[in-house]
Amino acid sequence: MSFTDKSDLRLPPLGRRLRLGFVGGGRGGLVGAWHFSGARLSNHWEVVAGALSTRPENAAASARDWCIAADRSYSDYRLMAATEAARPDGIEAVSICTPNNSHADIAAAFLRAGIDVILDKPMTSVTADARMLVEVQRATGVSLTMTYPFSHHAMVRQARALIARGEIGRIRQVHVEYLQDWNFAAQEAGNIGWRQDPSVVGRSSIVGDIGTHAYHLLHTMTGLDVAEVRADMFVCGGAKPQPDTAHIGLRLTNGAPGLLHLSNATIGQYCGLRIRIWGDRGALEWDQETPERLRLIPLEQEERIFLRGARQGVLPEAEHLIHLPRGHGETLTDAWANLYAEAGVLVASRRSGTDLGLAPLVLSGAADGLRGMTFIDACADSWEAGGRWTALAG
Amino acid sequence: MSFTDKSDLRLPPLGRRLRLGFVGGGRGGLVGAWHFSGARLSNHWEVVAGALSTRPENAAASARDWCIAADRSYSDYRLMAATEAARPDGIEAVSICTPNNSHADIAAAFLRAGIDVILDKPMTSVTADARMLVEVQRATGVSLTMTYPFSHHAMVRQARALIARGEIGRIRQVHVEYLQDWNFAAQEAGNIGWRQDPSVVGRSSIVGDIGTHAYHLLHTMTGLDVAEVRADMFVCGGAKPQPDTAHIGLRLTNGAPGLLHLSNATIGQYCGLRIRIWGDRGALEWDQETPERLRLIPLEQEERIFLRGARQGVLPEAEHLIHLPRGHGETLTDAWANLYAEAGVLVASRRSGTDLGLAPLVLSGAADGLRGMTFIDACADSWEAGGRWTALAG
Amino acid sequence: MSFTDKSDLRLPPLGRRLRLGFVGGGRGGLVGAWHFSGARLSNHWEVVAGALSTRPENAAASARDWCIAADRSYSDYRLMAATEAARPDGIEAVSICTPNNSHADIAAAFLRAGIDVILDKPMTSVTADARMLVEVQRATGVSLTMTYPFSHHAMVRQARALIARGEIGRIRQVHVEYLQDWNFAAQEAGNIGWRQDPSVVGRSSIVGDIGTHAYHLLHTMTGLDVAEVRADMFVCGGAKPQPDTAHIGLRLTNGAPGLLHLSNATIGQYCGLRIRIWGDRGALEWDQETPERLRLIPLEQEERIFLRGARQGVLPEAEHLIHLPRGHGETLTDAWANLYAEAGVLVASRRSGTDLGLAPLVLSGAADGLRGMTFIDACADSWEAGGRWTALAG
Amino acid sequence: MSFTDKSDLRLPPLGRRLRLGFVGGGRGGLVGAWHFSGARLSNHWEVVAGALSTRPENAAASARDWCIAADRSYSDYRLMAATEAARPDGIEAVSICTPNNSHADIAAAFLRAGIDVILDKPMTSVTADARMLVEVQRATGVSLTMTYPFSHHAMVRQARALIARGEIGRIRQVHVEYLQDWNFAAQEAGNIGWRQDPSVVGRSSIVGDIGTHAYHLLHTMTGLDVAEVRADMFVCGGAKPQPDTAHIGLRLTNGAPGLLHLSNATIGQYCGLRIRIWGDRGALEWDQETPERLRLIPLEQEERIFLRGARQGVLPEAEHLIHLPRGHGETLTDAWANLYAEAGVLVASRRSGTDLGLAPLVLSGAADGLRGMTFIDACADSWEAGGRWTALAG
Repeated sequence: MSFTDKSDLRLPPLGRRLRLGFVGGGRGGLVGAWHFSGARLSNHWEVVAGALSTRPENAAASARDWCIAADRSYSDYRLMAATEAARPDGIEAVSICTPNNSHADIAAAFLRAGIDVILDKPMTSVTADARMLVEVQRATGVSLTMTYPFSHHAMVRQARALIARGEIGRIRQVHVEYLQDWNFAAQEAGNIGWRQDPSVVGRSSIVGDIGTHAYHLLHTMTGLDVAEVRADMFVCGGAKPQPDTAHIGLRLTNGAPGLLHLSNATIGQYCGLRIRIWGDRGALEWDQETPERLRLIPLEQEERIFLRGARQGVLPEAEHLIHLPRGHGETLTDAWANLYAEAGVLVASRRSGTDLGLAPLVLSGAADGLRGMTFIDACADSWEAGGRWTALAG
Repeated sequence: MSFTDKSDLRLPPLGRRLRLGFVGGGRGGLVGAWHFSGARLSNHWEVVAGALSTRPENAAASARDWCIAADRSYSDYRLMAATEAARPDGIEAVSICTPNNSHADIAAAFLRAGIDVILDKPMTSVTADARMLVEVQRATGVSLTMTYPFSHHAMVRQARALIARGEIGRIRQVHVEYLQDWNFAAQEAGNIGWRQDPSVVGRSSIVGDIGTHAYHLLHTMTGLDVAEVRADMFVCGGAKPQPDTAHIGLRLTNGAPGLLHLSNATIGQYCGLRIRIWGDRGALEWDQETPERLRLIPLEQEERIFLRGARQGVLPEAEHLIHLPRGHGETLTDAWANLYAEAGVLVASRRSGTDLGLAPLVLSGAADGLRGMTFIDACADSWEAGGRWTALAG
Repeated sequence: MSFTDKSDLRLPPLGRRLRLGFVGGGRGGLVGAWHFSGARLSNHWEVVAGALSTRPENAAASARDWCIAADRSYSDYRLMAATEAARPDGIEAVSICTPNNSHADIAAAFLRAGIDVILDKPMTSVTADARMLVEVQRATGVSLTMTYPFSHHAMVRQARALIARGEIGRIRQVHVEYLQDWNFAAQEAGNIGWRQDPSVVGRSSIVGDIGTHAYHLLHTMTGLDVAEVRADMFVCGGAKPQPDTAHIGLRLTNGAPGLLHLSNATIGQYCGLRIRIWGDRGALEWDQETPERLRLIPLEQEERIFLRGARQGVLPEAEHLIHLPRGHGETLTDAWANLYAEAGVLVASRRSGTDLGLAPLVLSGAADGLRGMTFIDACADSWEAGGRWTALAG
Repeated sequence: MSFTDKSDLRLPPLGRRLRLGFVGGGRGGLVGAWHFSGARLSNHWEVVAGALSTRPENAAASARDWCIAADRSYSDYRLMAATEAARPDGIEAVSICTPNNSHADIAAAFLRAGIDVILDKPMTSVTADARMLVEVQRATGVSLTMTYPFSHHAMVRQARALIARGEIGRIRQVHVEYLQDWNFAAQEAGNIGWRQDPSVVGRSSIVGDIGTHAYHLLHTMTGLDVAEVRADMFVCGGAKPQPDTAHIGLRLTNGAPGLLHLSNATIGQYCGLRIRIWGDRGALEWDQETPERLRLIPLEQEERIFLRGARQGVLPEAEHLIHLPRGHGETLTDAWANLYAEAGVLVASRRSGTDLGLAPLVLSGAADGLRGMTFIDACADSWEAGGRWTALAG
């Protein structure tokens, strides 16, 4: 057996790495390091430019950390977009890892400069901005990819493919939870992190921050969307301006009910994104903290465990995301690399005018980003109405 | 170390076993076998009489299975109560394992005959009957014990004691789920099991059947009660007359929110009663399917695992329920035995007029049974009102 | 589904419970409590007589604990055997839970009195005594059952049945470990527990105490015996007169190699009896601490988990040992009850002259007890010879 | 908390990436892909040259996969060493991922060319070659790093630091196993993979291939070496020229015994490298397949779980290897990246003549490589002598 004989997603289709820039992601941030690791590990990108911080010293220091040449380190994203678009060796895409309320302007600037965009979730802080971005993307024809890394785990795709094949039958109920503990402490006045500031993050910190991941995972696995929500929200940790916890009832588009449980103030929970999907012929269970195992329980049969990298049982839709044999761990860093590899194929295809893709590319675009904002709005509307069942806007 | 040197709950305080009878529990049932196993294993009881079925042949055959003498096998509980009360060697207590709507009359008959009652949950099928039973119990002064076996696991008591000592601080959120799969199939007209028949089980099959266990566990561990509920209910498995699934929002008496998830139509879930309690100084997690382990996560410290039977760390409130060293499994059968041992101490104390008890007896009486009915009512009321927040009746 | 509709091993075949006595097992001991619990829970026995200790006060106090009438509490087993054999309501069997070096005399006395024997392992302290017991058993025709409780777990029988059906093919390698921690501390001169005293336990404390369990489990599951051993032994915990640890190479009768790892001085190990069996078509793994799950990995297929009490996949050879549905735990206490139920069927059959048995009774008799002694001898011989490969005596 | 505020091992100390070449690792191989991934993810290296295969077409195609310029793709390592050494922008280090028997000549050529060497294990196929390499390394003063990736998991370093601090006291026993299944099938004559060919891999395929990893892990964690071994070896899978299984008794330098179990023919085992270390004050357990958790059981206390990325409890010796918060998985890919980051610091320090290192760099050099060969020899000698206890050569 050789793992490199197969068609490998991590081989750059153009025979060279694409040139990537970053806005945000410098020292003091967290998400940027994931994007950067994924880009490096993917083998599809080299990071050659950045406006890594709005503070010039931090931008310069961060650029040195990332081995970006000094003359391609910017402290203003507009200058970066203009300058890079004009260079013959300018960046071909940009990754945006800034606070939510800056996403729309930054992404629009790069789209208009003809530079493909990779954008951290949620799409924007207010839905009107997301609608604007959808328009700009459509008008420019440049690609916009939203980053939902959990959907790039091989076993998530395995679940998606099993459900599409009907292995668990018609879906009858779902339970999704995303529980963390980092936001337990109180946020004191005058020292509120931007993730708690409504003017930065939008209407719901907890739904925007982690609920959108859970919503996207549910959609990716099942192929179903959410039709209606009923949301209660709470501050369970220390005092802070926005809820840190949400209990959300779901009605899926096929009529099945669901529960979504979100909190980042639950001690002892780390990155607890877990999904259980019950159909009328079987059930599937997946846990982001043990992402290489997928539990299938067919109705009235023994449990079966699918294992990333096993010789048998892994479906083609998942296989191309796998790089190491079973037992040799691949986790979130690898999922980020898969995301950046799939995005690389997309960008290289668009720029070369050729379909360089592997068939089962699964990426989220501008419409998905807007849909995520619609979900946030519906949850916020429901909560403000005392937990009334609220339909997602069309 | 010797495990029998300690004060052992399984040593009958009267130096003899108490005489026990059963109503219900014969062939074709399920719950009766648990009660009977718990009684035998407890070492406090010998089962000497029974009206194990309303069908005479079944009653007689079941009595032979249980080694009950033919002259003490009855097919009518009233005859049994009268006859046994008159015998010098008559039963000292009766266990009632019949369908819900018969509980009130049977229990009242034995209470009035001066025979202590051990009653399976839920207390009755309608709350008025429960109120009547509370009155009868109070008037007769005979004991009535409700059977919630999960609260007799040693590690449940360990959690209760840790919380009482403040180890996790003030409780800020709870999640409880009880998921099973036995009721997945459709219940066809004319062939509906009694557990689905509203005239037998009362207003809510799913809340009455397993929700009361979850509610009781939450109360036992935290010492808090539920103030308000918001319930949505669904048929997720095959068609049947009552919901097989409930999603219930909770507001605890200290103001903390909670989620309660109930279903017996979730494939791949067996006896999935799990509780997570988040406080402001730590969290506790317990799973009925691995009942000997209790996970404590103190705020900003490493996880600690308490293990039933370990030499250190087990608190006195749990210690007396432990009979085997760590690693030598004790599970649900042992929890039933603990329940019957604690009930034995209670009955022996009442009958002897002496406090024979070990200090930390934790048993549920008539008031707890009524409270469980109140919880069922509040959930049913909320559901019928479209998921309105509904307070439990005082 | 009803769990009591099936043929149930826990229904006494004679329609009454058999009368059982105990030698040993009183206050201060550990193993006796297991035997006693198993007997009660099995529903096949009532314990009516005992010589529970050689110290008269302890014998009397222990008899009260066990609800044995004062006139049937003995402090001398010879008197007990004679008296009980003469009573019309005398015991039909005796359980012997005394230190190893007393087993032979006690068991022989009861066999000669026509009372069936249930004997804790190892059979004796010296092999010559075991050979004598085999002869006495043969001459008297009374039954002798050795107690290896782990072989009465349902999933052990499931593994045995799967292997017998060829599900994992020809066995190519085995790994068995039995690790505990209770014997970590030093045993000071003048205060050596009897389990460390060679004059009481025989040639090898660690092999006799837990190695015989592991050896028996291996044999029960695979149907293969051990042909040769190579043993190294060590004191890894505090100083004591006998090794607390053994590393034993195995050669099975089919030529396959194996490893057996024994220690009761390994901190953090509790009752860690674990077995992995690798065949040429698949593998099986079982862990006594999670006894309700059996992992089967067929060659080049997904893992499958068999679950005690599941509706599908459990074979008839295991089914009759199961009393509760999946998820409702059955562990070591239940295995002891299964052992006593199977022994009850055996004794009732012999005494009634009728085969009352369920087909797949799996019990160990005198020959198995002797074989266990032979295994201990081979390990001790090998160790004394510096780890030479040593064949088991024929 | 920000994970990028801390001193981060993945920031290149020279402010630029070092230039790296590869010998071996092209299409059809497995190990090369790991090295290459680790180098990319580490952020310390860019791969700019390679002799990725001895077959020219494969070398060229593989170079395109890796985005190596055509003029720096070689099919002869000698030409590569000479050419690169002469270029002003030549490689600063080379990674060697070829079959064992070619390691010595290749590594020596690069060392003599002044190019630092990163060498896959085992060091060579015969020990004399390893001694030669040690001499060449010493004479040239160029660095040689052996790649044992498992020792670069953060929780392995945590274990090492806990043991060094005395947390589990004096080590009294160890158990290490490394079990896989990839080599189960028979190797037919004329089609034997090079990993089974003694002329390529040396005296012991199973010890050289995975036993050296286990030996190195044991040494890294405990600080102890192996003094003596007793090895039995077996073919447990299909017929093949060398054993696929070894059972090895160990005597550590402090006198403690150990067991090492190796097989790559155990169905259902994937990358099952597991270690348990028992001291006189506690025990540690770690499993490569769940590498982010480390189980500590202090004597007579509750179990404690250390978690990679937790806010508390992680020691400085492990902290700098951690890049993501707890729950956000880091596994084998990240361990390889840590290895390449530490090697990058070493090479940059040597080349700049400055100590750029973070204090707790833990890398294996030429002497460690030779020690690994000595271990293989002792195991092979012991096995050939029928399992005689055999001391490792000094």
